[in-house]
Amino acid sequence: MQQLKNDLLLRTLRKEKVERPPVWMMRQAGRYLPDYMKLRAKYDFFTRVQTPELAAEITLQPVDQVGVDAAIIFSDILVVPQAMGLEVLMEEGKGPHLPGVIRTETDIEKLITDDVEENLSYVMKALKIAKQGLENRIPLIGFAGAPWTILCYMVEGKGSKTWDKAKQFCFLQPGLAHQLLQKITDVTIRYLKAQVNAGADVVQVFDSWSGCLGPADFKAYAQPYLLQIADALAQHAPVILFPKGSWYALKELARSKASGLGIDWCIEPQVARDLTGNAIALQGNFDPARLLTSIPEIKKSVKEMIDAFGVQNYIANLGHGITPNVPVDHARAFVDAVKEYQHRI
Amino acid sequence: MQQLKNDLLLRTLRKEKVERPPVWMMRQAGRYLPDYMKLRAKYDFFTRVQTPELAAEITLQPVDQVGVDAAIIFSDILVVPQAMGLEVLMEEGKGPHLPGVIRTETDIEKLITDDVEENLSYVMKALKIAKQGLENRIPLIGFAGAPWTILCYMVEGKGSKTWDKAKQFCFLQPGLAHQLLQKITDVTIRYLKAQVNAGADVVQVFDSWSGCLGPADFKAYAQPYLLQIADALAQHAPVILFPKGSWYALKELARSKASGLGIDWCIEPQVARDLTGNAIALQGNFDPARLLTSIPEIKKSVKEMIDAFGVQNYIANLGHGITPNVPVDHARAFVDAVKEYQHRI
Repeated sequence: MQQLKNDLLLRTLRKEKVERPPVWMMRQAGRYLPDYMKLRAKYDFFTRVQTPELAAEITLQPVDQVGVDAAIIFSDILVVPQAMGLEVLMEEGKGPHLPGVIRTETDIEKLITDDVEENLSYVMKALKIAKQGLENRIPLIGFAGAPWTILCYMVEGKGSKTWDKAKQFCFLQPGLAHQLLQKITDVTIRYLKAQVNAGADVVQVFDSWSGCLGPADFKAYAQPYLLQIADALAQHAPVILFPKGSWYALKELARSKASGLGIDWCIEPQVARDLTGNAIALQGNFDPARLLTSIPEIKKSVKEMIDAFGVQNYIANLGHGITPNVPVDHARAFVDAVKEYQHRI
Repeated sequence: MQQLKNDLLLRTLRKEKVERPPVWMMRQAGRYLPDYMKLRAKYDFFTRVQTPELAAEITLQPVDQVGVDAAIIFSDILVVPQAMGLEVLMEEGKGPHLPGVIRTETDIEKLITDDVEENLSYVMKALKIAKQGLENRIPLIGFAGAPWTILCYMVEGKGSKTWDKAKQFCFLQPGLAHQLLQKITDVTIRYLKAQVNAGADVVQVFDSWSGCLGPADFKAYAQPYLLQIADALAQHAPVILFPKGSWYALKELARSKASGLGIDWCIEPQVARDLTGNAIALQGNFDPARLLTSIPEIKKSVKEMIDAFGVQNYIANLGHGITPNVPVDHARAFVDAVKEYQHRI
């Protein structure tokens, strides 16, 4: 691997000392950027995702326009169910729809687990193009959805406030649920390894809906699969786990093979540090709604956040994806505030 | 006040010893009950809410049909914005819509804060009729939305995943936000006092969206108003606060004048006990999705929940409202399991 000019993220994930925290934003390649909106007007969602040149172009947009310390490949967590043989429809602004929901053992048996590298080769191509475009300026992050979150969509067929069908499936047929979760895990591990081979320097696993599980159910249906992924990937690239909302699991996940843990804004930095010790880097946890305030207010809040987390062992980020209504200069103010922090040490 | 035949809930809230925990379910008077659905087919939402005889009838339905230890008046948290002069539209199955959203100081000044007892007299009438119908069998719970949650609807005009408009309003115009929150608080205190005068033995304050606030913002925009309500009501009736999702606030709220704290299922009972000590009764925290399993599974889970919380200082309940897809005999199994627990002590 070529030496990166800015390796703040990698050094943080390796527990090396840094002069300031690295900063990136979840969904940084997305709908708040006018240049993204131009491509969105021309190409539908899966065209953008499945055309390597487009995905790579979108990946690079926030690098120059907002100045983040890491790029994250533009893609979607639902490419995995797609690669496993399920149809995924995405109506702009409406969220995903999977008509062929999983109900029975036969449904699970029919899922494709081979050829994931082949079926998702467009992601690997996009990573390679993006990696080239980055010219070793900053690291490139690959990602996948966590098995529990992917199960949620596979069983419910669409978004849900409560995910009670997904839970019911697990509670009533735990054997089947674990069979499904294991299949998703196996595919995800192969997929993430392929992403690393294609140039991803770091991988993040998004457990977007883990926070709707109580602690015992998280331990049953989410945690084992997150740990399997961390175990399998750790020797290939640093892993960041983001079990959104599952603050109750931080203590145990800090002992995993992952190098970083994402947290949302509903936990005080000091509490998260107390739960995780200095065993693992923490990533977060700016409330995306705070990007809707004003530039001075954003900068003040970012400073307070870094004061609370400390410079070391910390990745500045949002606690969830940036929303489409954030002005670009507010996103830039967030990034700038982290970069300016070094002068204050 | 007449002596109640079953005063388990009141004794628990007074820290008196009980032979088993009291049990009720949030949204117990609602869409999982066939008798409710019959009334729903005949009368629209606000007719059901605003016709005292209908509201009282719905309130009593789960008492005989499910066997709960407390009735809660059938109403809606949005009657408060309505009484304050805002139009609230409720399309069946679609959630609320408030066309006249709050944006400016003038909008706030126009809100009606007088005559709440008059404007919501139908609730007080419903409480009186329900109280009579209960014939002192079990206590009657009155309720209101918490000021932060009501502000959310007043500012956004409808439900939201992120409530970012409501947050933006608070972050950019904190002075206005506090002015609005104080107005809602004043009205809510008068409204809850009127409910107690009309026969409510206990009042619960639902902060349904407090969990989308980070700890510092909860302390700024939610907590002070919850405390004001608890302070003002405590001498009139026991108060239960339910700041859904705000586990980070449990420690401080345990020191309030409230007698009980509701918690959702995303916290282990022992952790909630550790945070609150024995200073306050805890209420919850069964995952409503678990009511979709099977009767034996429900009974087993309820037993484990009571084992974890203990019999004293505990109110068995769900961690959120019961969902419409729960079979009535599953709801009954939940209640029965709590009642049967006494034999196992």
